[in-house]
Amino acid sequence: MTISSERIERVQSMLARRLGTVVVVLEAVHRRHNASAILRSCECFGVHEVHLITHGFRPSKGAARGSERWLEIRHWESTERAVSALRERGFKIFVADLMDDAHSPDTVPVDGPLAVLMGAELTGVSDQARGLADGAICVPMQGLTESLNVSVAAACILQRVTERRRLVTGGGDLGAERKATFLAEWEARELASRQGMIGRSRLNRS
Amino acid sequence: MTISSERIERVQSMLARRLGTVVVVLEAVHRRHNASAILRSCECFGVHEVHLITHGFRPSKGAARGSERWLEIRHWESTERAVSALRERGFKIFVADLMDDAHSPDTVPVDGPLAVLMGAELTGVSDQARGLADGAICVPMQGLTESLNVSVAAACILQRVTERRRLVTGGGDLGAERKATFLAEWEARELASRQGMIGRSRLNRS
Repeated sequence: MTISSERIERVQSMLARRLGTVVVVLEAVHRRHNASAILRSCECFGVHEVHLITHGFRPSKGAARGSERWLEIRHWESTERAVSALRERGFKIFVADLMDDAHSPDTVPVDGPLAVLMGAELTGVSDQARGLADGAICVPMQGLTESLNVSVAAACILQRVTERRRLVTGGGDLGAERKATFLAEWEARELASRQGMIGRSRLNRS
Repeated sequence: MTISSERIERVQSMLARRLGTVVVVLEAVHRRHNASAILRSCECFGVHEVHLITHGFRPSKGAARGSERWLEIRHWESTERAVSALRERGFKIFVADLMDDAHSPDTVPVDGPLAVLMGAELTGVSDQARGLADGAICVPMQGLTESLNVSVAAACILQRVTERRRLVTGGGDLGAERKATFLAEWEARELASRQGMIGRSRLNRS
């Protein structure tokens, strides 16, 4: 039993376009629909890694459209731990927030690795996240509502930031080892799932 | 009974930033959550006019965050009628679609009025809309999922297109008469709603 070379090439080509130096942190995004739409946007814009601080969150399958299978998702007990782990790896942390001195997605520095931290739908990022961050990003708005849906704001930020970061990195920048590990793990899951299906169909026939 | 000059100035300032030459058409966006998030994004990006082809749609109040009060919303029985009315007013129609020759939000022509037509969440725009359109817009993607949530895609398109159109128009471009009419209607609704509240509180006391 093997996986077609065409499918392997599709995954390899996706991994070649992946950014390891733009990551997303989701702090307490309670509505599964929004969190799942954010995972889907991450996958579409080539973000490889998503950090979830909502303990016990599981993406709703419909809204994520299976994108969670193509992401590295890490769970954290607290904002502090997630931020400090990312900082140790050289990331600067920017919270999505309406602060006066916020960067726009066009001006936030993309000369090094950066993490975009999104807060809860109604209350925004926590005071703790704000205190730990290197700065804020805000999508410029022209109306009276003055707040976008959290998954919409995430996508508007990621679209520009990944595009700008790609100009610096010259395209995808995921290390060879991480790409190889991801591919091997995907192949193993894929084969295990097929064996599971064969197992179940034999069981049904017996 | 009057409305404070501060509130009137806020609405006037919003209207001064409004674009009358970028409109959104929603064709059969069945999920109220998505359609309402799109209305909210339109308001945030200063789009004045939204055309709904889903007959009988009413925005879900939570997700729209009241933005529907600040928009001109027009209902249509069919895509054909909406498109032909817009074309008569000089709009070019671009469907959000994954066609090979699609423009990106960075390249779609913004030298004249344009309508962005969004389709249904799962099936996309109708064949009819595709046939009637002047072209397609697609947000560039780097992943395997290859489709953004419809409200996310709408926002990613509108963010760039309104920004680029504003560079052509030099800011808001809603005619003086439309601004005055909108303001007068808002004031009338506002005063009527206050009178209603006073009427109800009197009723409660009697």
